[in-house]
Parts: sequence; C-alpha cells; structure tokens
Amino acid sequence: MKMVKHMNFNEEISAKTSEIETIIRKYLPAEEGYQKTVIEAMNYSILAGGKRLRPMLMQETYRLFGGQSEVIEPFMAAMEMIHTYSLVHDDLPAMDNDEYRRGRKTTHVVFGEAMGILAGDALLNYAFETAVLAFDKEPDNRNIGKALAILAKKSGIYGMIGGQTVDIEAVATSIEKDQLDFIYKLKTGALIEAAMMIGAILAGATDEEVAKMEGVAADVGLAFQIQDDILDVTSTVEVLGKPIRSDEKNQKTTYVTLNGIDKARDYVAEISARAIASLEDLQPEKGFLSELIFRLIGREK
Amino acid sequence: MKMVKHMNFNEEISAKTSEIETIIRKYLPAEEGYQKTVIEAMNYSILAGGKRLRPMLMQETYRLFGGQSEVIEPFMAAMEMIHTYSLVHDDLPAMDNDEYRRGRKTTHVVFGEAMGILAGDALLNYAFETAVLAFDKEPDNRNIGKALAILAKKSGIYGMIGGQTVDIEAVATSIEKDQLDFIYKLKTGALIEAAMMIGAILAGATDEEVAKMEGVAADVGLAFQIQDDILDVTSTVEVLGKPIRSDEKNQKTTYVTLNGIDKARDYVAEISARAIASLEDLQPEKGFLSELIFRLIGREK
Repeated sequence: MKMVKHMNFNEEISAKTSEIETIIRKYLPAEEGYQKTVIEAMNYSILAGGKRLRPMLMQETYRLFGGQSEVIEPFMAAMEMIHTYSLVHDDLPAMDNDEYRRGRKTTHVVFGEAMGILAGDALLNYAFETAVLAFDKEPDNRNIGKALAILAKKSGIYGMIGGQTVDIEAVATSIEKDQLDFIYKLKTGALIEAAMMIGAILAGATDEEVAKMEGVAADVGLAFQIQDDILDVTSTVEVLGKPIRSDEKNQKTTYVTLNGIDKARDYVAEISARAIASLEDLQPEKGFLSELIFRLIGREK
Repeated sequence: MKMVKHMNFNEEISAKTSEIETIIRKYLPAEEGYQKTVIEAMNYSILAGGKRLRPMLMQETYRLFGGQSEVIEPFMAAMEMIHTYSLVHDDLPAMDNDEYRRGRKTTHVVFGEAMGILAGDALLNYAFETAVLAFDKEPDNRNIGKALAILAKKSGIYGMIGGQTVDIEAVATSIEKDQLDFIYKLKTGALIEAAMMIGAILAGATDEEVAKMEGVAADVGLAFQIQDDILDVTSTVEVLGKPIRSDEKNQKTTYVTLNGIDKARDYVAEISARAIASLEDLQPEKGFLSELIFRLIGREK
C-alpha cells in the first residue's frame, strides 16, 4: 500500500484494514469438495468482520523493524484464523453459549454444534497450514521456524488456552488478583504478544528487540482488557453496540470489581504510557503504531 | 533401541511400543500452573493407551530410509497428539456422544464438556508447538518445514477434518461409493499418510519416494478401515473388546453394507498385497514395516 501523506488517522486505519482484509481473503480455502460445509463454516466465521487488530499490529511491527517482504502475509492470516477459532469455540453451548456475535448468528447456531466444533478445529489447524506457506516464499529464512514456535506457544496452554482454562474455572467464583492477572495476560494478551513478536522476528529484529516488543504487547493487551472492563461499567449500549454491565450480571471478577473504577483508570493510563514510551525508544518519530496503540487503549467502544 | 536379532515379532512390537511410549511422555507438558486442569485433561487423554500405530509407522518409515537422528521424535509425539485430540472431540456430546473409550471414561465425562473442548484444542495446538521443536535439533534442516506442511495438511480440511465433516453429514443418510471412499481416504487414511510421508521426508527421501510412501499409506489406511467394517460384522464382543454390529445399529454405510462381505475381503487382500509389494520395491529384504502392515491389515481385533 502506498502511504499517502495527507491521510488522517481514520483514513489510514481504514485503508490498512482493507489491505489486511484482502490478505486474509487470499489465504481462505475455496468452498468446494465433499467437505464444503466445514469450509463454509470457517469462512462464515472469519468473514464476520472485526477490527483485524492482531494482523494489523503484526504488520505494523514488521514495518517498524524494516520488514518489506510478503513473508509476513501468511502469518497475518494465520493469526486471525486462531483468533477466530477461539471465538467460535468460546461461543459453543458448553462454553459461553452465545447465539450472536457482532449482530450475526454464531457459527454453531447456523451450522449446528458438531460443525461448530469442527470448524473451530479446522480454523486452528488451517492457521498452521497457512503459516507454513511462509517457507514457500523464503525457504532458507530461519526466522520462520522461530515465528512458528511463538505462534504455537502463545496460542496454547502457555498462552491463550491457558488463560481460557483459568477463565472458565473462575466463572462465578471469587478469584484473587494473581489469577486475574494470569487470565488477562494470557487470554487477551498472549495473541497480541504473538502478533508483535512475530512481526519483529520476521523483520529480523534482535532477541533483545523481540523481548522488548513482547513487553510492549503485554502492556497493550492488559490495558485493552482493563479498558473493556471500564467500558462495561461506564458506557451505554448505544455507544458500545453490545450489552453493558455484563460482568456484573455474570458475577465476574474484573479489574474494576477488584480495585474500583478510579484505580482501573489510573492503571490503564500508567501502563499505556509505559508501552508508548517503550515503543518510542525503538521508533523515535511518533508513527502509526504508537498512535494505533494510544487510540486502542483510550477507545470509547 | 538396539535390535536384538532373536526377538520374535510380538516381542519386537512390544519393545518398540514402549520405546514410543517413552518418547511421547517426554514431550507431554508438566501438570502445573493455574492452567493445570487443561494439562491434566490433555495427559489423561493421550495416556489412555492405544497401539501408537501412527508414531510407529512414522518411526519405521524414517528408519527404512536411513533416518538416525532424534529429529523424528517431536513429530512422533505431535502425530499422537493430533490423533488423540480428534478422539477427544469425536467423543463429545455434540459429536458421537461416547462415554467410554478403551474401558475408561472419556475426557469430557471426567473433566466436563467445556474442558473437553479446550483439552482437544490444546492437544491440537500443542502438537504444532511440539513439532516445531525439531528446529531446535536441526535448525538448518529444510525438510522440517516440508514435514510441518504435510502434518498440517493431512490433519486439516484436506485430510482428517475433511473426512470427519463428510462422515458427520453421512450419518443416517445413504451415501454413494465416492463419498464413502472420500471418508475412508481422509478420516482414517490421512494421518497414516502423514505418518509415513513425514518419516520419509525427515530421512531425506526423494519426492518420488515420498509420493510412493503416500500411496502405500493410503492403501494401508483403506485396508485397515475396511477390515474394521469386516470385524464389526464377523467378530465377537469378546475378541474385539468393543460392541459389534455398531455400524448396522447406527445405519452406517460401510464398504461391507455397500459391497457385501466377500467383496470386502477380496478388496482388503488386493490392496494390502499392493501396499506390501510397493514397499518391497523400496526395501527388498522383508523388514519389520512390511510385517507390521501385513499383520495390521489382517488383524482379528
């Protein structure tokens, strides 16, 4: 994409989102063959929309470290497939039992529960099938192996699935701050960490730089999640576009219920300032990525 | 393992199985941390026993082509994790709703349905997390990327998940021979193909040899599945250790219901002869692998 200098931030984000949308679609499987139904269910799920935040953070981090090749593209698509599968399985009757997401019927409601399970499995599997296509682009790039290892680790039991496990066990029980930190760090944070680390790794960043991006991403994930808790209490259905006060209804322990709204706001301000400062050490002139993070964290919806 | 010349086949298979068991255990995650429950559910599932057929076929094919390093081990463990996750999800209430497998309660019965879904997801994800550890052993081995691509493809919508999809849709409907072939080839055959292809790839076999092993494995998978259909009709509960005539009860179209028992038997004989002949082109002196395949296909339970 050519960067047109006079674009404002909203135009820029919308141009970047449609670029990412094109990349994701390029890597989706064709809806054909005897097994067509599961592919339709996969594509229905991933094309439900969304901010494409994780691939965007990945691509911007890749560019920040000077990355210029298409090797990042299969990983961007894979990242969104993993995020999508986690939503499909989270929505299942045995999990959160949600019938709607972003105003559309959820996958198992449309395709049946068995196909919902299979479509989630298929998306997770296809994520790795897609990510390994990076080897076709650069067969001798050893960073691809490293990026695959991060993708798998941050999605699994030491990442997102670990967080989901504790989250499920925490429903309707009072939990401690340590466990809440664990859930936030892993359930929301891990994929954001993966996105930014993979962007850095594939651009050839040093181990030290990758570790630094992991820290920035952890702060972004945490601030993002706490802001979610805050909006659940302070926003309106009209602004948020989804039910409010759901945490209260589900008797869910959140950062806000544990510490109160004022402390939550202070903490968001503190960690987002830290993330942006850390990023600006790496990129002195304030770029799109800092602005994106700043707006993400301070968002009103 | 040292091959002791005077071992008979049963002793040999039992020695090899316990060697594989040790390798699998080495790669299982430690049951610790806040997310302990999902790890316990993963390990419960994978340690339920089983023939470890896929890792065995992988290891033997690897040896057949002269492979001698430990690079195969993470793939052997990954293969069994993928097979196991597919059983855990197949047993779920929305799928086959099975409460027992190999005489033990199924994962979702012991850990609850939500944890059953998560444990399956976790095993699939951990399979890739484990397979990429091969890069730690041989960072410059380009065959690892090829092996990962085969693992992902044969497990996903163009492999096992594709077969499961058609199988689910075929329950209680009459299906055509083409669809049945598709289910057999993908649901049972695909992981066997992956096992033997990965063994060959990691040992440095040529593309032609890998393609030949894919053909052998496809025949093995098909013969194995048709033998399953035959035993369901001809065996007894005592010999088989599981309910017989289950296909009839579930109104399932099988090779036997479509073609009759005699044709089924002839077909098993034909394709197993073809598989073994093809294998002996590659390995003139009859080895463990041919014997294993011969016995697998002709098994009585």
